[in-house]
Order: sequence, then structure tokens, then C-alpha cells
Amino acid sequence: MRIEAGPLLSTIEYPSDLRKLEKMQLQQVCNELRQFIIDSVSVNGGHFGASLGVVELTTALHYVMNTPYDQLVWDVGHQAYGHKILTGRRSVFHTNRKLNGISGFPNREESEYDTFGVGHSSTSISAALGMAIASRLKGETDRQHIAVIGDGAMTAGLPFEAMNHAGVSNANILIILNDNNMSIDPNVGALKEYLTDITTSHTYNKLRDDLWHLLGKLPYADFQREIAAKVKESVKGAISKSSNLFEALGLRYFGAVDGHNVTKLVDILRDLRDIQGPKILHIKTVKGKGYKLAEEDQTLWHAPGLFDKVTGKINKVTYNTPQAPKYQDVFGHSIIELARVNEKIMGITPAMPSGCSLKYMMAEMPDRALDVGIAEQHAVTVSAGLATRGMKVFCNIYSSFMQRAYDMVIHDVAIQNLPVIFCLDRAGLVGDDGGTHQGAYDLAYMRCIPNMIVSAPMNEQELRNLMYTAQLEETKNPFVIRYPRGQGVMPEWRTPFEKIQIGQGRKISDGSDLAIISIGHPGNFAQKACLELEAENISAAHYDLRFVKPLDEKMLHEIGRKFSRIITVEDGCIQGGMGSAVLEFFNAHGYKPSVTILGIPDRVIEHGKPDEQYRECGFDASAIAAAARDMMKVSGKDLSLA
Amino acid sequence: MRIEAGPLLSTIEYPSDLRKLEKMQLQQVCNELRQFIIDSVSVNGGHFGASLGVVELTTALHYVMNTPYDQLVWDVGHQAYGHKILTGRRSVFHTNRKLNGISGFPNREESEYDTFGVGHSSTSISAALGMAIASRLKGETDRQHIAVIGDGAMTAGLPFEAMNHAGVSNANILIILNDNNMSIDPNVGALKEYLTDITTSHTYNKLRDDLWHLLGKLPYADFQREIAAKVKESVKGAISKSSNLFEALGLRYFGAVDGHNVTKLVDILRDLRDIQGPKILHIKTVKGKGYKLAEEDQTLWHAPGLFDKVTGKINKVTYNTPQAPKYQDVFGHSIIELARVNEKIMGITPAMPSGCSLKYMMAEMPDRALDVGIAEQHAVTVSAGLATRGMKVFCNIYSSFMQRAYDMVIHDVAIQNLPVIFCLDRAGLVGDDGGTHQGAYDLAYMRCIPNMIVSAPMNEQELRNLMYTAQLEETKNPFVIRYPRGQGVMPEWRTPFEKIQIGQGRKISDGSDLAIISIGHPGNFAQKACLELEAENISAAHYDLRFVKPLDEKMLHEIGRKFSRIITVEDGCIQGGMGSAVLEFFNAHGYKPSVTILGIPDRVIEHGKPDEQYRECGFDASAIAAAARDMMKVSGKDLSLA
Repeated sequence: MRIEAGPLLSTIEYPSDLRKLEKMQLQQVCNELRQFIIDSVSVNGGHFGASLGVVELTTALHYVMNTPYDQLVWDVGHQAYGHKILTGRRSVFHTNRKLNGISGFPNREESEYDTFGVGHSSTSISAALGMAIASRLKGETDRQHIAVIGDGAMTAGLPFEAMNHAGVSNANILIILNDNNMSIDPNVGALKEYLTDITTSHTYNKLRDDLWHLLGKLPYADFQREIAAKVKESVKGAISKSSNLFEALGLRYFGAVDGHNVTKLVDILRDLRDIQGPKILHIKTVKGKGYKLAEEDQTLWHAPGLFDKVTGKINKVTYNTPQAPKYQDVFGHSIIELARVNEKIMGITPAMPSGCSLKYMMAEMPDRALDVGIAEQHAVTVSAGLATRGMKVFCNIYSSFMQRAYDMVIHDVAIQNLPVIFCLDRAGLVGDDGGTHQGAYDLAYMRCIPNMIVSAPMNEQELRNLMYTAQLEETKNPFVIRYPRGQGVMPEWRTPFEKIQIGQGRKISDGSDLAIISIGHPGNFAQKACLELEAENISAAHYDLRFVKPLDEKMLHEIGRKFSRIITVEDGCIQGGMGSAVLEFFNAHGYKPSVTILGIPDRVIEHGKPDEQYRECGFDASAIAAAARDMMKVSGKDLSLA
Repeated sequence: MRIEAGPLLSTIEYPSDLRKLEKMQLQQVCNELRQFIIDSVSVNGGHFGASLGVVELTTALHYVMNTPYDQLVWDVGHQAYGHKILTGRRSVFHTNRKLNGISGFPNREESEYDTFGVGHSSTSISAALGMAIASRLKGETDRQHIAVIGDGAMTAGLPFEAMNHAGVSNANILIILNDNNMSIDPNVGALKEYLTDITTSHTYNKLRDDLWHLLGKLPYADFQREIAAKVKESVKGAISKSSNLFEALGLRYFGAVDGHNVTKLVDILRDLRDIQGPKILHIKTVKGKGYKLAEEDQTLWHAPGLFDKVTGKINKVTYNTPQAPKYQDVFGHSIIELARVNEKIMGITPAMPSGCSLKYMMAEMPDRALDVGIAEQHAVTVSAGLATRGMKVFCNIYSSFMQRAYDMVIHDVAIQNLPVIFCLDRAGLVGDDGGTHQGAYDLAYMRCIPNMIVSAPMNEQELRNLMYTAQLEETKNPFVIRYPRGQGVMPEWRTPFEKIQIGQGRKISDGSDLAIISIGHPGNFAQKACLELEAENISAAHYDLRFVKPLDEKMLHEIGRKFSRIITVEDGCIQGGMGSAVLEFFNAHGYKPSVTILGIPDRVIEHGKPDEQYRECGFDASAIAAAARDMMKVSGKDLSLA
């Protein structure tokens, strides 16, 4: 639904329009921009709290900086709605995250104001530093390079690596630390406490103020002048350099300042624009600012879905029949059931306690379920450390975020064959979040690693049984369980735990014309396709492979002997994925069937609804049935009698 | 060659023996241990400088701590020779890094004293923290958990993620920062400067000492008592908490102390043992300590090869004929040739300027060739940032270290289709370094990513031409060029640059009985195999695929039409690798040849010489020829006439 902009905002298509305004008009722009975001997200959906929190910063940045010549990089990017609205995309903003609409994140193909595509956190400093180094080489000393990064994103290792480099570069980069104490869930860790610390009166700022005061008043006459001078020097040196974490890393630190005072931000940004070199501005903001409910429950209002903007009531579809749960909740509740019995079980999440539903265990067993912050690498290696001491760790990381910890999976877990359990949520196609978040590659990048067990459940019961199997003492290998975002298929999901033989698939249905081999949730599409085909007198057998590694050789031999036409179905990339593993098996054992591999094709799948994406990729039920018909046509039985 | 230990060292098999000695005897143990390492490495090879630098620390740790009950984690692990010698492996130390001998790194399968397998840097804090959390849950409050990490390893993101977690945990962990200003090459970055800073007299320690002094002497009678009290409080708070980077992260900081004073280390470690919670001890050491030449040229003596321990002359084999260069040097010199012409070219290395030979460009074009420290993630994303501004970046990262930056390759480079050039040195089997360093997975984990070009040169000329092609303005995609450790095959390697059609392979030789498809350096093994087979009247065609992505469809159609027997050869993992890609192609196009896939099997390949490893994996020339013979036997022509 298209949204009407306020009177001032409606005159602004691009930052050049904004820059024609007086500074005193900016607060009104902010008010209208905030209202536009509320109006739009309430009826069109999307991320909410983060963008509300940076309305003033966004306005001030585009007012002061010469965008797009000046390079502005938004970390993560779900806070960039205001940026999009002020940079030519107000009139299409209602298409946000919809199929063929604009992306929910900055995207280089969408606008020259989007200097760097994002979606995952913590990349902005590195990216902006690269741009700044390029400008320095080109002699463009007037060009600004700004990374806006949250305190949550700052807990990842990458920003630290980038600051370690920035601090010794002479590149012209301004890091804006948008400190709101939040990731999607409340931010955690020592850095968060430190940031709170340096913005409260009893530490850094206080010290600085007080010491200048003290040094100015020292009664030199009554004091040893020489010592006093030396002390003064060392105090000054320490305060300006070592006494702040960021200055220790060679960045000039400014702050903390109120991130909701737009005129003050304008003044500060103008000052900073004239200071060359690496520097950091620390601003304090409130996530959800200006929408009371969002300020009060920041996790809920991170991306609330549709809601009534007046009452704040979040739309929930109600059903008359029991619904299947989300896979994430099956994980979240099942781990507690298992942990109550097996005291070796722990849960680890890198900043996704709500998203992966580990929050339930964190509430019930706070010592055994830990949020380590946005720190996927550490999440994996700390799990490895725990495993060396006999713990059974369920390390839950979204599939696309697990890419961050790939070396830790190989080097710290797989090579040592430690029995860490990796639950990869958001595997497969994820819908609105689009290209950066697709869990497309995990089957390919996991199955090439020695010692790994790689599995995917077709439904809730399977997920529970895989979790149960993974935590058994007899299971000695690293164990991947990957499952999609969203709902499963079993309203009555709390089935009794049963052990699954590792590497054993299952036959879902018999058939004689062709075989469909599926892995994970798309097995449900295959099941539907089988019914559809049956009605057309095509007899398709259906096998749920369950494990991409180790393969069920017995079952595959059965399939290889019996079928010359095979369709494989996976919600993962075709290149190197499950179908590829099946081909390797058939080739190694001399079977020569025709195999149609359905899965995610070799391109970036953009945002849309999952169903739209399944269709686009060609492995929903209709596409599977169509593939079967095609196979039968090429070398099939005569269907004219059907 | 077995080495004789000194009189005291020869009485020490395990730390329990060490603990029977008097503290005053420890310096002699250190002297003998150092001599043993010098004696051994000079004749048996291995890492050198790092272990010499921690002789005193190693001795003190095993003397004070109750290993193996207390958990000792060595970061990287190439400094753990002393540790191995003191923990039951002195008598087998001459087998270090040799086939079936002990590993050059700590390894859990080798000893209970090796609590965590390493090889890659920067994992120790996460691992030790995991162990400490497990101990806390088990109520083992007396157990110590110690991570020994260098200042070079500290520049990676992972230790920062771990400290952010450790600082708010109540886990009992001691981080020992072994500060010697070095990675393999000199350490770089802001952190290094900071560490130098806090150990020199003009900053932190000075400030602390002076301020206590000052505050003790403040003439309160002449001064406003209230202000003084407040200032004192804030100064104290700041010094103990905020004024040190590590204390900002919630770690109690101790140091910096002399890491070569063994008795002092013993005293400090005893004190620290009694302090619960997360803490860091900063020690200063000299890499190569005790061997003058190694102290003076620390990069050369990181792993010098065999040498005369008396004269310090490093053994170099001399040849009468011109030798082929190392691939890394072909890269190192060729990038300069290209960069002289194309001013958009830059080079980036994460801490491997000597290892990848970017050091030559760093010397000639210091603004355009950068060492960013041990920071693979940042190396990739800063390259992406540079690419957005039109630079052509050669980002050179060892294949196994590239696993660290997998998400950055996908998220920051490939999804945005930025033309960053990734040169993956040490791809394939790497020899002595063993399992953690095998560049086994890159073909599999790269080819599943959209937009990527993935290539491997068969020789020096091909490497040069791929580099040339990658940097052309018309090349718009991310471009992987992976090549092995060690020598190529062309003494006359400086061939003129020629453009290669992207996705075009080449036919090396014709044949009629079967086809061998190779990628990269093992193409040379295939060539040898073809000659061997020819002598046996088996006519093998040989194709160099060059690109795993995009595939040369024309060439593969030719092969598919012509051959029913095909052998693929790659120095990468069989699962999901090049052979798998070829199977996908043949399957998709209805060819049904028999394919034998040779490559790295699905297990961790331990240390040994590359030739031994090629043989073990079954893709050296003899193995290829044997595979061809097997194929001919199964369905071959009658060879009895040969």
C-alpha cells in the first residue's frame, strides 16, 4: 500500500532537496520521516525498530554529507529505511521486500546511494575503509567515507580486524557507533558493558573532565614541580590515547552524544567532516524511538509484521484448526526436553535467542544456554572447547550466518572429530530477507568436510529424532541438522523421541516408474507431487534421504537397481549439493540412471515469499510433478491409457 | 635423527618429573630444552623461532600448573615444541612432521596434554573458555584453563569475540599474551602499536605508578578535599577498568613482564592460579630467543629448514640446471609486472607477505600492497570495498585460511558480483603442516557460489595468464585462482601475458581409449601418466579443464561424445569437487560415461611430504595410470597385443 508523506517530506526526492532546507526545519523532516516509516511498515511489513532509531542520524548525514559522492555504508542495513526514503525510493517504498520490489537492505544495483550491499552484520568498517583507501590512492581527499554500525554488530570479530587496520591507516573514515544496547535481542558481552561505562558519568568522561580540572588547580608551589609535570604529561597521554578502547586502536573518539538531537548531530558531523583520518563518533539512540510500544519491547518490534499503528495491536492470523509449529520452536522446546534428561547438553546461540528459540532454554537453564553475541566464529569454537570436556553442545546458527564460522567448523570441530551439534536454522529459501540470507550453500559446503554428519529433517518428528540421535553418547561425530525458516507440517508435533540410524534414509512411498529422492522439508512437496502424478497414472516412488552424509548406500543401491529415472529435490544449491552427492554414488557404483536435479539454481535468489521462491527455483510440488512428466515423455511408458 | 638431551632434561619424561625439581634448577632445564630444540630442528627441520621464544614460559607453565588436569591451549601451535618435549614426546621428537611421525602442532589424538588441536591461529581463547565453562558447570573450581596466544594471533577477530564473552563470564580462564611483535612476518596494526605503548614507560604503567604517587602526596590541606576525593575515585576506577584495552573488555590485566625470566614467571603464575575469573597476563618475549641469528632475522628463522647449528648456515640444495620457481614467487613477481601497467591493481595479504611473496610488491609499491595482519575476513571485505571504487584487488590468502572468510566471499563479494581476484596459495596438499593446512576444500566450497569464476593453473605460464585475464577491465566477476605450495614446472617461467577465454579449457593431448580431465598442477601428473600408458598401448587423451566454474561446455561435450571412459584428477576433495562438477554436466546432458574420480579422499590427510601425500591420496602419475589400466580391464580393448 502506498503511503502519503508529510508536507515537508513530500518535497524531498533526493538529499539535494533536503540540503535546501534550513537546519531548523530538520526536526520536522525527522518527524515526518518517522511517521512515514510507521505508516508504511504497519501495513506493508518489514524491519521497524532499527530504522526508527536512526531517523535523526539519517537526516543529519544526508544533510551534511555530499552523498552519493561521499560514501555511506550502513551496517546490516535493516536500519536503512529512512536512507532509502530520502534517496529516491519513497514512491516505491511500499514494494519493500516484496517480489520484484525494492530490497529490505541496501543494494548496489538499486541505487548509487547504496554503496555496499549488506544483510549480514559487521561488514561496514572494512567496506568503508576499502573505499577510503581507494580515495586516498586517487587523491580524492575531500571524499568522506562513513560506516554506521550498531553496538551489537560491533561484537563480531570483523569490525575489530577492520579497526586494527584503520587505526594505522591514514584513510579518511568516520565510524558512527550507533549504540542502542541491542542486537535483535539485547546486546551481550563485555563491550556492551564497556560502552555503557564510558557514557556514564563515573568513568571516562568524568575522569577526563575532573582531571583537567584537577591539573589546572594543582598547587604547584606546594608540590614538586617536576613530578607534577611528568604526571600531567602521562595523564594527558593516557587519556587521549590509551584510556579508551577505540583510541587504543588508533581511532580518534568523539562522544557519546544524543543521537536523537538532529541539529546537534548536524553540527558534530560538520566538525568531523573537516578532521581527516580514522575516527569514531559514538551516539546513543533508542531502538524504536518515537513509537512507544517499540521502545518498550525492542525485540518484539524489531520486525513485528503488520500491525495497527494506532492501537499497536500486531496482526495475528487466527486459525480454526491446530497449526503446525515453527521449526525453530520445535528446536527450542525439544532441546529443553532433552536437556532435562541429559545434563551434558548445552545450547549456544550467536545473538539469535529469539530467532532460533533458544530463549526458552535460556530462561529455564540460564547456565546451560548462552547467547554469545554476534560472534559466529566464537560460538563454534567455544562449542568445540565445551565438547572436549564432554559436553553435548547444540550450537544453533542460521545457515547463511554459519558461513562466518566455516573454518571453525573444519579446523576446530571436524578435523578433531568433536561431537558438536550444529542446528542450522533458516536453511533453504528464507523469503523476505532475500539474497544475503538464503541458506542455499550449507549442504554443499558441509558435505565436503571429513567426519561430518549432515542431515535435514522432513518434518517436526524427524527434527526431534535427529536432535535426540545427535545428543546420544554413542554419536561421536559433528552433526549438522539443517531446517528451514517457518512452519513444519505437524500440528501434533510433540512425538516421542526415537533414535535414527545415522546415515539411514526412509522410503516414504513405493512406485515403479521413477524415484524421487528428497532431503529435508521439500520432501513434503515431493509427497504432494507423487499424489498428483498418481492421478495421472505415473507411479513415483519417494525416498527421504535424511542424510546427505553419510549416504544411505543400501537405499541408494535399491534405487539404482530399480530405477532408470530419478529426480532429486533439495532446498539447497544444485552445484555440489545433495543431487550431486547422489550422482557421485551412482557413478561410483556403475549405475547410469537419468537424474533430474531440482534445487536452488546457480544465481542469487532475491526476496519474495518462500512459496514464490520455491516456484521460481522450480522445486515446489508442481515443478517436481512437471519434471516427472518430462522424464516420462523422454523415455516413458505410454500414458495415453491413463 | 635422534637428539641427545642434556643431563637434567633427560630426567624429565613428563611434567611430574619437572615438578620434582627446585625452582632454581629451572633455568638449566630451559637451557637444555632450548639446546634440544636447536639440535633437533637444525637436523630434522620444523618451526624454530616461536618455540625458542616460549621455552621459559613452557617450563614455568608445566612446573606451576597441574597439567594435564589443568587445561593448556597453545594458539597456532608451532610454538609447542618445548611443550611436546616436556610431555612424553622427547624420544619421538625426531619424527616431528614426518609421515607417521608426531604432528608439528598439538593434536588431541597424540597426547592428553594436547587439549586442543591447532594449526590455524587465534582459536585458543574460545577453546579454553569453552573448557572453563564446562569446568564451572561441573563444579571443578580448582581447574585452570590457560590460552597462550601471540600478539599476531590477537589481531584476528575471533580472540576479540572470545574476550567479549570471557569478560562477562565468571569462567576461570587465564590468557597469556605472548607479545613478540611478530606473526611469521612482523606484526602490523593498531593493536601492535598499542601493546608497545602500554609496555613503555610513558603510558599505562607510568600513569599508574605516577598517579598513585601523586594521589598519595596531594596536599589535601591546601586543596579542596571533596574534589580530590572524587578525582581519586574516578582515576582509580579508570585505571583499573577503562584505561586498558583488555580491562575495558572485563579482563583483569597483569603485565607486561619479562617472558624469559623463568623464576619470575613461576612466581606470577602461582599468584594468578589463585585468582578466579577471566584474566590476562602480558609477557614480552623475543622470537628466536637464544639463537642469535634467529633473533636477528625472525621471519627467515620462523621455519628455516635444515641448518648448521654452529655456523647458522641454512642448507640450500644447489642444482646444476635451472629450476622451476615456486608458484608463490610467480604470483609475487607477476603482480608487480601487471601493476606497473594497470594502476588499479592492488595487493592484499593477511599476514603472509613472505609466504605468498607479496613482499616484493610491498617493497616496490607500498601504497598499493598491504598486509592487514591475521585478519582474513577483513582482507576480503576491504578488498570488496576497494572493488566498489574500481580497484582490481589481488587478495592472496592460503586456501585453508580462506575458510575464515567464507561468508565475506559470498556476502560481500559474490552476491554483489564485485571483481575481486582471490589468489589461493597452498591449495591442495601442503606437506609437513598436515591436516589443518590442507587446501582440500576450496574447489567444492567455491564452485557452489553464484557469480564466481573458479580456476587453477597447471603451470607457471597458466598462472600468469590467469592473473592477466583476471585483472582485465572486461572481467566483471569475482575470480579465484588456486595453486599449490611449492615449485611449478617451468624454469623459463616469465612468459608473455596472454588472455585466456574465461571458462575455456585446453586439450593437452589426443587419445582414443579414454580421457583424463585434470585441473591445476596435477595435470602434470596426468601428462606423465599418459606417457606411461602410451608405452602400454593405452591411448589416453588429456584435457586441462582450467576452470571448475564456468565449465568448458564445448570441451565437455566433445569428451562426452567421444569417450565412455573418463578419469578426473584434482588436488581437492572428491566430495563436491571438480569431478563432481563434471558428473553434473554429463548427467545434465545425457552422457553416461564411466567416470573415475581421483582426488583427496574423504578423510583428514596428515603431514608428510607432498609426494607421499599424492601417493596416499591416489592421484600421482602412477595412480592415474593404474586407474586407467583398471578402466581398460573392466571394459577395455585387448591389450595382449601391446
